[in-house]
Amino acid sequence: MARRLVIIGGDAAGMSAAAQARRMKPPDELEIVVFERSSRTSYAACGLPYLVGGFVKTPDSLVARTPEQHRAKGIDVRTHHEVTAIDATASTVTVRDLDTGRETALHYDELLIGTGASGISPHWPGIDAEGVLQLRTLDDAAKVERLLCAGARRAVVVGAGYIGLEVAEGLLERGLDLTVVERLDAPMGAVLDADMAAGIADAMRAAGIDLRLATAVTGFTVVDGRVTAVETAAGPVEAELVVIGLGVRPNADLARAAGIGVGEAGGIVVDDHLRTGSPHIWAAGDCVESRHRMTGRSVVVALGTHANKQGRVAGTNIAGGNAAFGGVLGTAITRFKGVEIARTGLTEREAEAAGFDAIGVTTEASSRAYYYPGAQPMKIKMVVERGTGRLLGAQIVGREGAAKRIDVLATALWNEMTVAEVAGMDLSYAPPFSPVWDPVLLAAGKAASKI
Amino acid sequence: MARRLVIIGGDAAGMSAAAQARRMKPPDELEIVVFERSSRTSYAACGLPYLVGGFVKTPDSLVARTPEQHRAKGIDVRTHHEVTAIDATASTVTVRDLDTGRETALHYDELLIGTGASGISPHWPGIDAEGVLQLRTLDDAAKVERLLCAGARRAVVVGAGYIGLEVAEGLLERGLDLTVVERLDAPMGAVLDADMAAGIADAMRAAGIDLRLATAVTGFTVVDGRVTAVETAAGPVEAELVVIGLGVRPNADLARAAGIGVGEAGGIVVDDHLRTGSPHIWAAGDCVESRHRMTGRSVVVALGTHANKQGRVAGTNIAGGNAAFGGVLGTAITRFKGVEIARTGLTEREAEAAGFDAIGVTTEASSRAYYYPGAQPMKIKMVVERGTGRLLGAQIVGREGAAKRIDVLATALWNEMTVAEVAGMDLSYAPPFSPVWDPVLLAAGKAASKI
Repeated sequence: MARRLVIIGGDAAGMSAAAQARRMKPPDELEIVVFERSSRTSYAACGLPYLVGGFVKTPDSLVARTPEQHRAKGIDVRTHHEVTAIDATASTVTVRDLDTGRETALHYDELLIGTGASGISPHWPGIDAEGVLQLRTLDDAAKVERLLCAGARRAVVVGAGYIGLEVAEGLLERGLDLTVVERLDAPMGAVLDADMAAGIADAMRAAGIDLRLATAVTGFTVVDGRVTAVETAAGPVEAELVVIGLGVRPNADLARAAGIGVGEAGGIVVDDHLRTGSPHIWAAGDCVESRHRMTGRSVVVALGTHANKQGRVAGTNIAGGNAAFGGVLGTAITRFKGVEIARTGLTEREAEAAGFDAIGVTTEASSRAYYYPGAQPMKIKMVVERGTGRLLGAQIVGREGAAKRIDVLATALWNEMTVAEVAGMDLSYAPPFSPVWDPVLLAAGKAASKI
Repeated sequence: MARRLVIIGGDAAGMSAAAQARRMKPPDELEIVVFERSSRTSYAACGLPYLVGGFVKTPDSLVARTPEQHRAKGIDVRTHHEVTAIDATASTVTVRDLDTGRETALHYDELLIGTGASGISPHWPGIDAEGVLQLRTLDDAAKVERLLCAGARRAVVVGAGYIGLEVAEGLLERGLDLTVVERLDAPMGAVLDADMAAGIADAMRAAGIDLRLATAVTGFTVVDGRVTAVETAAGPVEAELVVIGLGVRPNADLARAAGIGVGEAGGIVVDDHLRTGSPHIWAAGDCVESRHRMTGRSVVVALGTHANKQGRVAGTNIAGGNAAFGGVLGTAITRFKGVEIARTGLTEREAEAAGFDAIGVTTEASSRAYYYPGAQPMKIKMVVERGTGRLLGAQIVGREGAAKRIDVLATALWNEMTVAEVAGMDLSYAPPFSPVWDPVLLAAGKAASKI
């Protein structure tokens, strides 16, 4: 008789695990049942700001694979089904059919928790008003669309991190009057060092955004159930549409209630094989804690890249293979208008907080040979351990070709290289693509000369 | 009294060494004399095809630093001076002033040979005719300009390697009727595997080039001292302008005549500190052999990147520091129209020739998230050692964002990673920049599944 794998959550982690397990085991050896609360599977939440901005034309194009497509591969996907409890002793889950309200119990031989994360939603008065939303699902994007069709002209984005910047770009594209309110004193202030973040504020203001830094939101003015203004410590800001972009926290309550270990960072604790502390229970994606390779500490980093990789690793192990997740570096990129923003490893501030004796060295470089038309400046900051010269992290802010250069430095971090070693590497060169000393080599060389 | 460093050749390697030594030692400790045959120093030969194509507007913009600028830094640059002999026993060089013809001898305490490389010029009848040239110097570019002004309309490029492709792009840009004649059966046939090179031929023909593959040049038809046709085994091709792009060979004769060791690949033999076998004599740049990190063998790779790095290493060591050149991977990129071409490490053919049990795995991927507008296909080939899974080399052919991705794989090669390790890395992701599985990760994952 086939063993049964039950998966909670039909997005990146869950469906990657399902697909990988199915590749390795046929249905007569492994039955795979996926419970998903919504009506969709495997959709690209990271594409939502671009849908709102009109760069992506239809919601459907964000769905990588539909429930039907998964079913055709022998995966029993049940949408509109929510798992409400796990009994780790009896090896069962309690499932509610959201259409009928009926609850049933189902036995599992292996269980994968892929419950994802939810947008952080502070207890601000009025946050439940119509017009205040997170941009986490296709339904959220549809709400934005309805408000714009109804004539909304003034929008406020709360938070100037990755999602805040991307949503701001999208709303500007739609011609809205836009204010961005950020608690910290710089956009991307939580993920970049202050010196690297400075130019981003200029770019936002140049694009026409009313950027209010170091400004705390205190609540919302609500009239007839609809938001009319965001209240801040520095006064109200009129708004017919408010998008909250304050990051996410892991959906770990279901696991916690079942006695499965949840860590200090708020995510489900897993080993590098994605096993929880409970036998036959695995977890992957935005709901788990991952090991940060630079600090060795457990962190929560909600990113599709990790969710996909972890799903595949978990699926491999569940199907009897042997795979390990190598941890995270905190690599991330985004774009605001023409400005590309990237980071990997630790910022100078993070390195100091983690107990490293770190210095930051910033280099201005050019994206192409100095004589080649269209060359754009970029700024690279290297964070280096004093004494050893080991690279601890890097940040890049620039224009064309800036963001993706972070991958070279992520690879260097993965291999624990020193900046002197990085500076000596055989990277590519041709005048339309880089100066003879690529910005990465130049920055590493300068950093090596300072330690 | 100051010691004297004599440098032969005032381009990338020589002037990088001079600048680095000067940074470390003031003139009263180290005198630096540079002999350069031409009238220029530190010019970007790699920019010449773009000058011919009009992408770069003036010849002067290719000069990174003039003799006067070097002199202002305390480097005694003597242009129009050719070193005709080295006496390693007496520690002197014989120098001819090319303006007066006068020869003198000069003592050195340290000598750096940075004589570069010369374009390969086969003994084909008629190769010295007017209208047949290499594109190696600003004077060569000026010759092309004169021929175009004089009304030349039909051009032939001999060789479809890096320089051939870049010159072809430039001449097309100038509106010439263009034929490219290549001995091998694919463009880039010497540096890419055949399956990766195939698409490049299509792009060249689509751009209007009469591409003649597997065609051997036998000589030139010359009338009144001017070329009128390129003769090939398959018949003549009319031409008023012929650019030979067959690669280069090291200028090692001066060293050889002085008893300094020259290797089988034709370059001066140096250790990782850039010391030749003769005391106090160093060499750097296109004239030396470098260690290939994948094979351990000595190779000649004439590239500005290596020349600059080696010059800096040699300058550091000559000035009493301690630096090493880490070897080469054979990383290279170029562009033909919108097509980006990149390689690093060994091709499948090179890996087999070097005795590896290698397999090649090719992956088609997208430059952006599948739903993000403007996504372009790219093809990545991974060459992998069977059994160990160690990455031996990679090739990428695609459009936007294709070429520079090779640097991630060069960094992986530098660190001797397996493809499974590469597939697990924390590389960056955002919809405008890559799919959630970056093409590099996708290709590595596919390769890992095949070995």
